Amino acid sequence: MAEAAQTLDGWYSLHDLRSIDWSAWKRLSSDERQAAIHEFLGLMEKWKKTETEQQGSHALYTIVGQKADFILMFVRPTMEELNEIELEFNKTKLAEFTIPTYSYVSVVELSNYLPAGEDPYENPQVRARLYPTLPKANHICFYPMDKRRQGNDNWYMLPMEERRDLMRSHGMIGRQYAGKVKQIITGSVGFDDYEWGVTLFADDVLQFKKLVYEMRFDEVSARYGEFGSFFVGNILPEERIHSFLHI
Amino acid sequence: MAEAAQTLDGWYSLHDLRSIDWSAWKRLSSDERQAAIHEFLGLMEKWKKTETEQQGSHALYTIVGQKADFILMFVRPTMEELNEIELEFNKTKLAEFTIPTYSYVSVVELSNYLPAGEDPYENPQVRARLYPTLPKANHICFYPMDKRRQGNDNWYMLPMEERRDLMRSHGMIGRQYAGKVKQIITGSVGFDDYEWGVTLFADDVLQFKKLVYEMRFDEVSARYGEFGSFFVGNILPEERIHSFLHI
Amino acid sequence: MAEAAQTLDGWYSLHDLRSIDWSAWKRLSSDERQAAIHEFLGLMEKWKKTETEQQGSHALYTIVGQKADFILMFVRPTMEELNEIELEFNKTKLAEFTIPTYSYVSVVELSNYLPAGEDPYENPQVRARLYPTLPKANHICFYPMDKRRQGNDNWYMLPMEERRDLMRSHGMIGRQYAGKVKQIITGSVGFDDYEWGVTLFADDVLQFKKLVYEMRFDEVSARYGEFGSFFVGNILPEERIHSFLHI
Amino acid sequence: MAEAAQTLDGWYSLHDLRSIDWSAWKRLSSDERQAAIHEFLGLMEKWKKTETEQQGSHALYTIVGQKADFILMFVRPTMEELNEIELEFNKTKLAEFTIPTYSYVSVVELSNYLPAGEDPYENPQVRARLYPTLPKANHICFYPMDKRRQGNDNWYMLPMEERRDLMRSHGMIGRQYAGKVKQIITGSVGFDDYEWGVTLFADDVLQFKKLVYEMRFDEVSARYGEFGSFFVGNILPEERIHSFLHI
Amino acid sequence: MAEAAQTLDGWYSLHDLRSIDWSAWKRLSSDERQAAIHEFLGLMEKWKKTETEQQGSHALYTIVGQKADFILMFVRPTMEELNEIELEFNKTKLAEFTIPTYSYVSVVELSNYLPAGEDPYENPQVRARLYPTLPKANHICFYPMDKRRQGNDNWYMLPMEERRDLMRSHGMIGRQYAGKVKQIITGSVGFDDYEWGVTLFADDVLQFKKLVYEMRFDEVSARYGEFGSFFVGNILPEERIHSFLHI
Repeated sequence: MAEAAQTLDGWYSLHDLRSIDWSAWKRLSSDERQAAIHEFLGLMEKWKKTETEQQGSHALYTIVGQKADFILMFVRPTMEELNEIELEFNKTKLAEFTIPTYSYVSVVELSNYLPAGEDPYENPQVRARLYPTLPKANHICFYPMDKRRQGNDNWYMLPMEERRDLMRSHGMIGRQYAGKVKQIITGSVGFDDYEWGVTLFADDVLQFKKLVYEMRFDEVSARYGEFGSFFVGNILPEERIHSFLHI
Repeated sequence: MAEAAQTLDGWYSLHDLRSIDWSAWKRLSSDERQAAIHEFLGLMEKWKKTETEQQGSHALYTIVGQKADFILMFVRPTMEELNEIELEFNKTKLAEFTIPTYSYVSVVELSNYLPAGEDPYENPQVRARLYPTLPKANHICFYPMDKRRQGNDNWYMLPMEERRDLMRSHGMIGRQYAGKVKQIITGSVGFDDYEWGVTLFADDVLQFKKLVYEMRFDEVSARYGEFGSFFVGNILPEERIHSFLHI
Repeated sequence: MAEAAQTLDGWYSLHDLRSIDWSAWKRLSSDERQAAIHEFLGLMEKWKKTETEQQGSHALYTIVGQKADFILMFVRPTMEELNEIELEFNKTKLAEFTIPTYSYVSVVELSNYLPAGEDPYENPQVRARLYPTLPKANHICFYPMDKRRQGNDNWYMLPMEERRDLMRSHGMIGRQYAGKVKQIITGSVGFDDYEWGVTLFADDVLQFKKLVYEMRFDEVSARYGEFGSFFVGNILPEERIHSFLHI
Repeated sequence: MAEAAQTLDGWYSLHDLRSIDWSAWKRLSSDERQAAIHEFLGLMEKWKKTETEQQGSHALYTIVGQKADFILMFVRPTMEELNEIELEFNKTKLAEFTIPTYSYVSVVELSNYLPAGEDPYENPQVRARLYPTLPKANHICFYPMDKRRQGNDNWYMLPMEERRDLMRSHGMIGRQYAGKVKQIITGSVGFDDYEWGVTLFADDVLQFKKLVYEMRFDEVSARYGEFGSFFVGNILPEERIHSFLHI
Repeated sequence: MAEAAQTLDGWYSLHDLRSIDWSAWKRLSSDERQAAIHEFLGLMEKWKKTETEQQGSHALYTIVGQKADFILMFVRPTMEELNEIELEFNKTKLAEFTIPTYSYVSVVELSNYLPAGEDPYENPQVRARLYPTLPKANHICFYPMDKRRQGNDNWYMLPMEERRDLMRSHGMIGRQYAGKVKQIITGSVGFDDYEWGVTLFADDVLQFKKLVYEMRFDEVSARYGEFGSFFVGNILPEERIHSFLHI
C-alpha cells in the first residue's frame, strides 16, 4: 500500500452556483424586486462582517454561459456554518427566483511541506493560506478534479516519492503564474463527488486558459488528471448587484 | 470461478434524500406549515417507538450543498417495512414540499469472520452490528460503491485468499479510526445500482476526509474501488426541526 | 465470426415503472380518487381475464426507494398488444397521477437446448416457460444487462463452445436457487438499450442478493457482465391497491 | 492515415420522437381535440403529396415503452425542408401536447460499390435507395451507432482493405434477411452525436432481434460497434390516428 | 513533460443554443409577440452596429432536430461583454419563451505559425482570423472536442514534434475544403468542459459530413479525438425572423 500524503486542512468551503428564473423575477412588482435585493444585500453585509472578523470569507461572481448565472463561494470554520448560510439564503425572497445548478463541498487544503517539529498550524504564512480571504479579482474559474485510477495510469498506486516529484514539477508551472493567477485548492474526498476543487482568480481571464493548458502537458494532468465541469465568470461587486438584477 | 465470500445480513436499509421546495413551502400559511411539521414530528415519534422496541432505527441529518436538503436513513427487519415508511412519509403534508433527489436500498452486511460451528446470528456482538441503533453523531457521510471489474483490475476474478488478504489490510485502516468514525456497511447487490453503501458517522467531519483519503491509497480502493456520489451532512435533532423549517 | 446461439422466443414483455405524483393525487376529491381506482381495477380485471384465457400474464409490485413507486410487468403474444395496454393505461385517470420513470421492452427468451429433430415450440415444458404465468411471489427484482465487448473481455468474440461452457456453469448457480428464486430472462437486442432483462421473483427478498452476488464471481458476470439499474419491490395484491392509494 | 471510404449521399433525414402529454390532452374539449387532429391530418396530406411527387417520404409509427409515444421520420432533398417540417409541426395545436424525447439528423448513405466510370447518381437502383419511399411495414426499429475508436479496437485506424472485407461479411448477414427486414442507413458524421442511424422495417418484429443479435457476433459489431438507444414500434396508419388520440 | 504549443488568442466567444417554448409563445397575443420580436430586432441592430465598428461579430442560425431551435454565436473582445450580451438577452421578452439547451464559452485560437521575431498580433491576416467577422453561410455546424488522454492514446504525452507533424497532416484535410467550409477554432481549456469548440460554416451542408468524416480517418481524430454533441443548422437571416416566429 502506498503511503498517503499528509495534508493541512483549513476552512470548509461551499461553492453554490445558481441560475436566475428571469421570467418569474420579471413577474414581481418593482417594489417586490427591490425588497428582495435589499434583503440579499443585508445578507451580504452579514457575510462582510464575518470577513472583517476573520471568521470566513466569500466571493460573488457572475458565470458566463448557461451553466449558471452566478456563483457564491464561502469559506467558514465549520461545516455547520456552511449549512446555515445555505439555509438562510434558501429562505430569502431572491432564492425563490434562483435555480440550483451545481454546488461543491470541500475544505481548504495544503500539502504539509514544513519541516517536522514545527506546528504548521502556527505558521502565519500557512495560516493565511488555510484561512484565506477570497480575492476580489476580475475573474473566477472553478473546476473539480480527480486523480485517475485507470489501468497503468493509477495515481494511487504510485510510490509516494514518485507522486511527490511529479507534484513538485506540477507546482512549478503554477508558480510561474504567481501574481497573475491566485489558486485555492480545496480537498473533497469524503465530502463531494470529485477529490479536489480548484478555484482560480485572475484579473486577466486569458491566464486561466494559459495556466490550465500548460499544466495539461504535465504528466500529473496528462496521465492522471480527470476533470469535471469548468465554470468561468466575472466579478459582481456589491454596487453592481442592482443593475445585474434590474429589469 | 472464484468463490464468493459469505456474508451475514441484518436489517434492511433505506437512505432517502430530499430537497425542499422552499418557494412552495413559503406559500403555505404559518398554520399550515405548523400542521405539516406537527404531522412529521408525529411520524418521528412513531419511528422512535420502533427504535425503543428495538425493531429498527433511523437517522435525520441535513445535507450540505445542492444535492439534497436532508437525508432520512432507516433500518428495519423487512423490505416491506421500508416500503411502508416511504409510503407513509410520501402521504404527509411535508412530503408535498420535498423533491426526491437520491435513495439507496440495501441490507446491513458483515463478513462472516466467526469460527465455523458457531451460529453468528446468536452472537451478541454480531447482533449489535447487524441490527444497529444508528448513532447520533454530529455528522453523516454516505456514498455507494462497487468493486471494479475492468481489464486487469477485476476484483471478482481474484482468488478468495487474495481478496481476503486485501480486505484485511483495508479493514486495518478503518480500525485506526475506531472511536472517531463509526462505519455501517450495507450490501445492495440485487437491490440497487451499486454493490455497497457506506455510511459513516463522526463528531469531527474532517475524519471522513482523512479516512476515505487514506483508504484511497490502499489497493482495495486504489485498484478496485468505484465510487458513486458522496453526501455529507450535519445532524438535525428533533428539537431543531422547527427552526430548520421556520420561515 | 463467432456463431450466434439459437434462441427460442416466447411472449413479448413490457416492464412499466412509474412514480406517483402524491401532491396532485391528494388534490383530487375522495370521490375522484375512488373513481380513478375503480377504473384501474377494471383494467386489472381485463388483464386477469387475458391471463385466465392464457393469452398473457401480468404482475404488479411496489418498488422500494425513489426510482419508482410501482412496476407493472406484462407479457403478451404480440408487440401490438403491449402497445395497446400502454395506451389504454395512459388514458386512465390514475395515469395522470403517475410519472414514467423507466420501461423495458423485450421478449421471453430461452436457449434452445432440445435435441435437433424435435420442435421445441411443441414441447409443453418449453411452452410453459416461453408463455409464462408471472408468479405471485412476495418480491420482484428487475435489472437489464449486457454482455461486455471491451478489450480482452469481449463475449461476442469468444468461440461458441467457450460461451456454451461458461453459460452452463453460470446456469448451475441459478439451479441452486430452484424453489427459492424464479427467473425469467427476456431478450431485448433490437428492442431496448440493453441486451437482456432479468426478472427475478422470490418470497425471501434476501435470495436476490445471494443469487446475484454469487453469480458475480462467476466468469460470465465477473468478466462479461454489464449491469443497468436494479429495481426491487414488494407484491401489491389487488386487495391492497385501495390502501396503497388511500389518502 | 487510413483512406476514407467513398459514400453516396441521398435525401436528408429527420427522426422526430415525441411523447404525448395525455393529462393536458384530456383537459382539452372534445372539439378542440378534433380540431387538433384535423390540423395534423392536414399536415399528413401535405406530406403525402410530397411523397406522391417523389420529393420526399415520411413514416409514422407508435413506440413501445416510455421512451416515446410515436416517431415521425422524414426524408427530404434539403436540410432546410427538414427544418421547415419541424417548425410547421411545432406550431400545430397537437405539438403543444407532445414532449420531444429524441431526434436524429442524418442523410441517406450508400457505399459506392459501382465500377469507376459510371455515375452512380444516374443508376436507377442506386437512386431508388438514395431517395427512398419509406415502407409501410408493421414495425420500425431505430438506433444510432458509432464505429469504435478504443485501444486496439479502433475502426478508423484499420487499413481500408480490412474495413472493406469486414463490411462485406457484415453485409452478408443483412442480405440473409432480404424480404424480411428493410434497412435504411443514414450517415450523421458532422450532423448528430453518433456516426450513423440505422432504421429497420419489418412485418415480423422478431426479425429485428434476430438480425441485430446475429450481427452482434460479427467482428464489425462485436469489436467495433457502439450502440445508442434502441426504439421499436408499430405502424400507425392514418386511419388509426383518431383512435390512437381518442379519449 | 511535453512542451505546450504556443497559441494566439483572439476574441472571446459564446455559443448560446435555445429551444422555443412554442406553447407559451402561442398564448401571447399577436401584439405581445410583435413587441417581443421588435425588441429582439432592436438587440440585433445593436449587435450589427458592434460588427460594423469591428468590435465583435455574431451569427444566428436555426438548429435541425430537438437539441435546440436556434443558436446565437457571439465573438467579443472581452469576457465581460459576452456576459452582458447574455444578460441583456435574458432580460428580453423573447427570452422568456426560450429554454437554454447548451452553451459554450471559448476564445478564438490560432496556432502560432509565424517566424519568431515578428509580432503575430500585428499581422493583418492573423488579425483577420483572430478577430473574425462570422460568415453568412447557408449552414452552421458546431461541436466541442477534446484530445484524448487514455492508455496508449494520450495526446498530451506525445513529444511536441510528433504532435506538430500530426496536426500538419490534419490541417491538410481542412485545406482541401478551402472555399467550401470555413472553420473557426476556439479554445476552451479553463473556460468550458471540452478543450476546443469547432464551428464550421458552409453553403453546402454535405461538406460538413465529408470534412468531418474524412478527418475521422486521420490519426489526430482516429486515435486522439473525443467529440461532444454535434449541432447543425440553417441560417436565419434577419428578414426571416418574423416568419420563423410567426404563429
